[in-house]
Amino acid sequence: MTPAEHAQLALLLEVAGTPKPGNVDRDRDFPDLRFEHFLAGAIGSGAGLRAAEEGKPVGEAFEQAVEGMSHQEGGNTQFGALLLLVPLVKADELSPESVTEVVEETTVEDAEGFYRAFEHVDVAVSDPPEGMDEFDVRRGSSAVSALREADTTLYDVMELSADKDGIAREWTNGFPRTFQASERIAELDGGISARAAQVYLEFLAHEPDTFVAKRHGKKVAESVLVRAQEALQEAREGNSELVTAFADSLVEEGINPGTTADIVAGGLFVALERGVSP
Amino acid sequence: MTPAEHAQLALLLEVAGTPKPGNVDRDRDFPDLRFEHFLAGAIGSGAGLRAAEEGKPVGEAFEQAVEGMSHQEGGNTQFGALLLLVPLVKADELSPESVTEVVEETTVEDAEGFYRAFEHVDVAVSDPPEGMDEFDVRRGSSAVSALREADTTLYDVMELSADKDGIAREWTNGFPRTFQASERIAELDGGISARAAQVYLEFLAHEPDTFVAKRHGKKVAESVLVRAQEALQEAREGNSELVTAFADSLVEEGINPGTTADIVAGGLFVALERGVSP
Repeated sequence: MTPAEHAQLALLLEVAGTPKPGNVDRDRDFPDLRFEHFLAGAIGSGAGLRAAEEGKPVGEAFEQAVEGMSHQEGGNTQFGALLLLVPLVKADELSPESVTEVVEETTVEDAEGFYRAFEHVDVAVSDPPEGMDEFDVRRGSSAVSALREADTTLYDVMELSADKDGIAREWTNGFPRTFQASERIAELDGGISARAAQVYLEFLAHEPDTFVAKRHGKKVAESVLVRAQEALQEAREGNSELVTAFADSLVEEGINPGTTADIVAGGLFVALERGVSP
Repeated sequence: MTPAEHAQLALLLEVAGTPKPGNVDRDRDFPDLRFEHFLAGAIGSGAGLRAAEEGKPVGEAFEQAVEGMSHQEGGNTQFGALLLLVPLVKADELSPESVTEVVEETTVEDAEGFYRAFEHVDVAVSDPPEGMDEFDVRRGSSAVSALREADTTLYDVMELSADKDGIAREWTNGFPRTFQASERIAELDGGISARAAQVYLEFLAHEPDTFVAKRHGKKVAESVLVRAQEALQEAREGNSELVTAFADSLVEEGINPGTTADIVAGGLFVALERGVSP
């Protein structure tokens, strides 16, 4: 398979993994966001991912992937995952150094592509850092002029959000959790989507999900982490009931650890490229 | 979405529909044939489907799609579905007349592409019609010389198997069940993959599956039909237990109504092209 195909397959294997508390998976639909919306999102993002593979700039390929992803009625299905996958698809080799080269070379035009991507789909974002209001993605085209005036690249934009956003943190730190996820997926046994679900739970128990923190505050994100640790511990002792109860409670509370799922999708891509195969 | 994307999405929505007695679905894996093999097959067939969309001949595009589909360890996941989808993707409009034009225009070279496709994946086939041994796909390249000598097109090959094979019958009759499936999918309510699963059961209760007949004989195929009718009747009365029991029994008996699933995939494609959307 080509890198773009592996990226699409990574999106599919990610959503197929179950149980994945708080997210849509093979066994769980939400009322307005269903498994089939993710299937359509993965297919629709293909042209943008192929554009990245063929050498199109990050911002342009990302915008095209998000636009393609948006042709379904579930809304934002894979925005964060695509933000990881596009530079990974473009990297010469799958190493922290090589993907860092890709993201460090991004330009103001890439930042503009990223901002335009928000026009295709409703993405939850937090307030910009203090004094950075002019870069608020919710300002649309007026934010784009601010980017141009300040000569702000997409990498700069990510640096501004790295303290609050787990995807931005991957961009500015050599994609550490993405590579870690890929290694963990490669060392586990069984079906690939099942391994991905296991890694999702382990990651959720290891670091607070930034998407949850943005939407519900830091305290909630930390309590999700503690509950994930308890569920993981019980699961290791052979009891999966707590994982199910944890999943049900997250749904009830409307808590969706999306960033962790996005990082697992990035890890799946790296694992597939390195030879893990369904 | 483009026709090739709709074809890939049709493959995904088909396998996601559940319950789909006797087949892999969102809720059921077989030991050696799992949901994720179908996900990989749908992604891998993309380049061949795009080749069909761009005007490549049926045989060449089909072979490419099957080759791409085969990069997973589950074996044959979507051979029959792709044999329906490739001419559908190539049709000028989605009408029986237009797709019949595509299949009637196939050549000896298309037949050769079809025969070559069998080299990429292990497909269950029945004995060729009496006196047609030289066209047996299991003869490989020597069958190809026979095709050339007799000037046998892919349409001719399909005509030879139309009495035994539900896909070939679609080819030679204006894709009647494919269009019927699409209309039924469009008129039902709910998620698209759930509608597809419902149509699968209705079709299984209406005509014996030819893949089951090939592998297990006519009588078994007819008994599957009767049991599908009973399960459908109970399901209509609000009791889904018999559908589950029917699904379990088919798995136990190793019975896999694959042709019916393939035709539903074709119907999903037509429905998506006509505006049904996840």
